[in-house]
Amino acid sequence: MNSNHYVLTISCPDKTGIVSRVSTFLAENNCLINEANHHADKELGMFFMRNEISKLNISEEEFQTEFSVIAEEFDMKWNLSACAIKKRVIIMVSKQDHCLYDLLYRWKSGEMDFEIPCVISNHLDLKSLVEWHGIPYVHIPVTPDNKPHAFSEVVNWVDHYQADTIVLARYMQIIPPDLCQKYPGQIINIHHSFLPSFIGAKPYHQAFDRGVKLIGATCHYVTEDLDAGPIIEQDVRRVSHSESADEMVMLGKDVEKNALARGLKFHLEDRVLLSGNKTIVFA
Amino acid sequence: MNSNHYVLTISCPDKTGIVSRVSTFLAENNCLINEANHHADKELGMFFMRNEISKLNISEEEFQTEFSVIAEEFDMKWNLSACAIKKRVIIMVSKQDHCLYDLLYRWKSGEMDFEIPCVISNHLDLKSLVEWHGIPYVHIPVTPDNKPHAFSEVVNWVDHYQADTIVLARYMQIIPPDLCQKYPGQIINIHHSFLPSFIGAKPYHQAFDRGVKLIGATCHYVTEDLDAGPIIEQDVRRVSHSESADEMVMLGKDVEKNALARGLKFHLEDRVLLSGNKTIVFA
Amino acid sequence: MNSNHYVLTISCPDKTGIVSRVSTFLAENNCLINEANHHADKELGMFFMRNEISKLNISEEEFQTEFSVIAEEFDMKWNLSACAIKKRVIIMVSKQDHCLYDLLYRWKSGEMDFEIPCVISNHLDLKSLVEWHGIPYVHIPVTPDNKPHAFSEVVNWVDHYQADTIVLARYMQIIPPDLCQKYPGQIINIHHSFLPSFIGAKPYHQAFDRGVKLIGATCHYVTEDLDAGPIIEQDVRRVSHSESADEMVMLGKDVEKNALARGLKFHLEDRVLLSGNKTIVFA
Amino acid sequence: MNSNHYVLTISCPDKTGIVSRVSTFLAENNCLINEANHHADKELGMFFMRNEISKLNISEEEFQTEFSVIAEEFDMKWNLSACAIKKRVIIMVSKQDHCLYDLLYRWKSGEMDFEIPCVISNHLDLKSLVEWHGIPYVHIPVTPDNKPHAFSEVVNWVDHYQADTIVLARYMQIIPPDLCQKYPGQIINIHHSFLPSFIGAKPYHQAFDRGVKLIGATCHYVTEDLDAGPIIEQDVRRVSHSESADEMVMLGKDVEKNALARGLKFHLEDRVLLSGNKTIVFA
Repeated sequence: MNSNHYVLTISCPDKTGIVSRVSTFLAENNCLINEANHHADKELGMFFMRNEISKLNISEEEFQTEFSVIAEEFDMKWNLSACAIKKRVIIMVSKQDHCLYDLLYRWKSGEMDFEIPCVISNHLDLKSLVEWHGIPYVHIPVTPDNKPHAFSEVVNWVDHYQADTIVLARYMQIIPPDLCQKYPGQIINIHHSFLPSFIGAKPYHQAFDRGVKLIGATCHYVTEDLDAGPIIEQDVRRVSHSESADEMVMLGKDVEKNALARGLKFHLEDRVLLSGNKTIVFA
Repeated sequence: MNSNHYVLTISCPDKTGIVSRVSTFLAENNCLINEANHHADKELGMFFMRNEISKLNISEEEFQTEFSVIAEEFDMKWNLSACAIKKRVIIMVSKQDHCLYDLLYRWKSGEMDFEIPCVISNHLDLKSLVEWHGIPYVHIPVTPDNKPHAFSEVVNWVDHYQADTIVLARYMQIIPPDLCQKYPGQIINIHHSFLPSFIGAKPYHQAFDRGVKLIGATCHYVTEDLDAGPIIEQDVRRVSHSESADEMVMLGKDVEKNALARGLKFHLEDRVLLSGNKTIVFA
Repeated sequence: MNSNHYVLTISCPDKTGIVSRVSTFLAENNCLINEANHHADKELGMFFMRNEISKLNISEEEFQTEFSVIAEEFDMKWNLSACAIKKRVIIMVSKQDHCLYDLLYRWKSGEMDFEIPCVISNHLDLKSLVEWHGIPYVHIPVTPDNKPHAFSEVVNWVDHYQADTIVLARYMQIIPPDLCQKYPGQIINIHHSFLPSFIGAKPYHQAFDRGVKLIGATCHYVTEDLDAGPIIEQDVRRVSHSESADEMVMLGKDVEKNALARGLKFHLEDRVLLSGNKTIVFA
Repeated sequence: MNSNHYVLTISCPDKTGIVSRVSTFLAENNCLINEANHHADKELGMFFMRNEISKLNISEEEFQTEFSVIAEEFDMKWNLSACAIKKRVIIMVSKQDHCLYDLLYRWKSGEMDFEIPCVISNHLDLKSLVEWHGIPYVHIPVTPDNKPHAFSEVVNWVDHYQADTIVLARYMQIIPPDLCQKYPGQIINIHHSFLPSFIGAKPYHQAFDRGVKLIGATCHYVTEDLDAGPIIEQDVRRVSHSESADEMVMLGKDVEKNALARGLKFHLEDRVLLSGNKTIVFA
C-alpha cells in the first residue's frame, strides 16, 4: 500500500534556501510531503533533513537525475529510499535468544517492515526457532583459528543475499575492522549497558559491583572502536540492592530487546542520519 | 539575543505546495529556517506547520502584509510570534504552593522565558512568596455570592496587564463559561489526575480507592467542559499499596509541577496548535 | 534448585505480636527467612505479610498442622506455597499473538517459572505457534449461541489440567459471571488501556479521540464487573499527535506485553495479596 | 504526631533466628511494627533489616540497654532513630540554585521533614533566597590558598549546629579527604551525570560529545574517591540530537533535583544502609 511512498534524506552545509529549493522541487513534481524534519547543527554548520513523500509523480530515475542538480549546488549527501522496497536485514546471533525472538515476532506480525534473508550464527542452538519462521539458518562456527575465514563467509552471505543491514542480536563476537569498514552505518549492535558505562565484557556484573540503581542497553552502529560507535537508541530500567548480577542479566533482556527494536525501526525507516560519531534520529 | 527570532505557525487544509510556497517566501526574504515541524492529519485533511526562523530580513509589518496573500490563497490560520517579545502570563493560585514555587523558580532562573505581570489569588497565603520575587500579588476573594464580580475583576487585571496567558496553578475554582470563551487556548490548567480518569474533586482519593498503580497529572487548555479541554501534556509516576491517599497527594505534586512546566513551556514557545479538542504539540 | 523454597503469605487483623509469632515459629523450625514484606493497612486495620523461606526443616504437612494453631489465634488467611511446584497456567487467546508470543518466550527461556498445560483459543490462528512450543492447543469456538457450552468446556479443561491460573492474553471474549466466581483471584486479564480510563471496546480509539499524551495497559484480576477487578500492574508509554489510532494499537502492544508479564510474574511468585477490590503487591 | 515512631536499622552476619529474636523483643515490649524490610546478601553472608515502629512502650534508654544484649549476640551494627527528632542538614551551595530552591520548597512545605540549621556557600549569590526562608547563610569563600582554613570553618559550623548530614547541592568544590573521613555516610552529593559515565568536570558536555540519548544524575555518599562513593539514587531523562550541550545542562537540572530529593528523603528516613561501597535502599 506504500507503493508510492519515499523517504528523502539530506545532509549538507547549512545556508538559506535549502528547504525552499527542495520543497519547491517536490511541489513542482507534484509530490506530497507527509512528514518533514529538519536539524541545523550550529557547531558544525550542517543541515540535516528528512522528507516523507506520500506520492512521487515522476519516476525514480527522473528524480535521481533532476535532483542531482540541486544536490550538487548545495553539496548534499542525499538518499531517496522507496518504502515499498523492504530493507534486507541479516541477523547474527550466538546462543542468547531474547533479541532474536523479539525481532522475529515484530517481523512476522508486520509490526516492523523488513526482510530477513537469513540468520547467521556461530552455534546451532537457535536453528529450529529460525527455521520454524521459514528463514534459512546459516551456521558459521567461529574459533580463534578460523576467524578470518569465518567472517569472509559472512561477507559472502551478505553479498549473496544483497543485505543492506546486519544486526548483531547479542552475537558475542568482535567484528573484524575490515568488516566494520566495509559496511559503515549498516551494522547495528545491541550492547548490554548504558554506554559509555561498562564497556566490554560482563557489563551487568560491572553494574552490580558499582551498585548502580539503573541498568541500561545501547543500540549503536558498529565501528572499529569497540562499543564506541554512533549511538542510535538507549534505554534503562530501575534495579535495586535486591537484584543479584544474574537477576540483572535477566531483567536487562527486556531493556536490550526494546532498545534494539526501537533503534532498528528508526534505521529501517531512514530516520537515522550520521553526523560524525553521532546520530541525528528524526523519531 | 533572540531579537530577530520568530516562530511562524500555520494550520490549513492540506494540499500539495504548502511547504514549497512558505519556504520559498521565507527564502526570498532571506529568512533562515532553524527548525521546522509538519503534521498532516489525514482524517481531517488538515496540515499543521511550525517554523522557527532565526533571522527575519523584512519588517514584521511587511511580513504580515506579504504573507497574508499566501495565507489567503491556502486558507491558512497563521501566526507570527516574535521570540523577543515575552509572553505575559498571569498565574492564579489558591493555597497550594508547589506549582507556583516551581514556576517562580523557572521564571527567575530564566529557564523559562516569560513575564509574570501579577499573581492572582483568592487567598493571602502566598503573598509573601510572590512579593519576595518582586511580583505584584492581587487578592481577589471568591465566595459563592461574589463569583461573577470576582471574575470580572480577574478580567480587568488580565486586560490591565495585557496578559496573553492565564495559568491555573492549582487555583481550585471553576472558571465561568464566559471567561473560558473569552480566552480560548489561553487558559492553562493543571489537573491532578491522568485524565480522563478521575475527573472532578479529590482525584487522588479516587485513584487510591480504585487501587491504581500509577498516578498522573494533566496539563490542558480550559474550556467550558470541566476537565475536558484539549490536553497539552501528561505525566505519571508509580505508586503502590503502601501509599495512602494523602501520600499520593504529596507524591503527585512532583508530577503536577512537571506536567505543568512542560505544558506551559510548549505553549510559550508556540509549539502547541489546536485541532478541534486536541492539540498538535511540536515538542 | 529451589526444592526447599517456600512462600508464606498471610492476611489478618493487625495487632502486636504477629511478626514475632510467625518469625519465632519459623526460627524454631530452623527456617531461614530470605526476604520478608509487611504492610499494615491502617484504614482497614489489616496486616499483610509475605515471607520467602529458603529452607523448611519440617515437612509441609507438619507445617500445615502446627501453623494452623497460630493462624487460628490471629484469625489469619494464609497460604504456604512450595516454589518447586510450578503454577499451572492456562493461556486463553483469540487471534492477537503479541502477548502469547511474549509469554511463550518467557516460559521457554525459563525467565518465568511456570507450566502451560494448554492454550485455549476460539480461533485456530495461533495453533501452529503453540504446538511448535510443544504445548497442546485446545480449540473452543465461541458463538453467540454456544457461549454457556463453550465455557463449560473451558472449565472442563481447567479441571482436567488442574490449572490454578487462567491468563486472558487478549482473549476478547467476556468471561461469564459464574466462571469469574469459580476462580476468584485466579483469572488474570490484560486490558489495553490505563484503567479506569477507556473501559470497554476499542480503548485506543477512545484514547486517540480524547487526545491523550500517554497510552497504557492494565493487568488485573477478572471479576464479574467488566474491567473493574483488582489491578495488579499498569504501564504507559508516550504518544503524540503524530500517531493514528491504528499506530497506537501497534505501539500499545509493547505496553500490554510488559504489564501482563510483570503482573503474571508477581502472581506466580505469590507476591499479590487481595484486599477487597485492591491488591497488595510485594514487588 | 510521630512522637512515638522509631526506625530500627540492623546489619549483621546472616543466620537463622535474627528476625524472630528482634521481632519477639519488639513484641515483648509492646512495639507495633508498621513496616519492615529485610535483605539477605548471599555473597557477603550479611543480613540487613529496617523496622518502622509505630509505638515504643519502653524508654529509649531501656531499649538501648536491653537491645544491646541481642545486638552483641548477633554481632549487629544497629541504630534506633526517633522520627520526632528531625535530622539536621547543612546544605552547601555555590552559585547554582536549582537544587537549593527545590530542597527549600520541600523543607518549607513539610514535604520532607528535616531541619536546615544553615546554608554554607563560597559565594553570596543565594544569600537573599536563603534568608527569606529564615535560614542563616554562612559565607565561606574558598580560594586555592585558603582551602584548609575554609574547610576547617565548615567543620566548625557543622559541629556548632550539631548537623548530622551535609548535602552538597551543586557545591562545585572537591571535599578534602579528612572531611570525607570525618563524616562517613553523612555527606551526600548530587553528581550531574549517570555515574560511572562522565566522572569529573562538565559531564553534560561529555555526554553531548558522546551523543548519548539519555542524560542522568547520581545522588551518592561522598568518599575520598571523587564521584565513586556509594550510590543512593539515580535518574535519567531522554535527550535528542536537537539539544545542545547548554540545553542539556538546563534539562539536567530537573533530573538533578529529583535524584537529590529522593536520595536525601531515603537518607532522612533511615532507609539507606551501607554495605561496602554499595547501598541497601529500603524504598
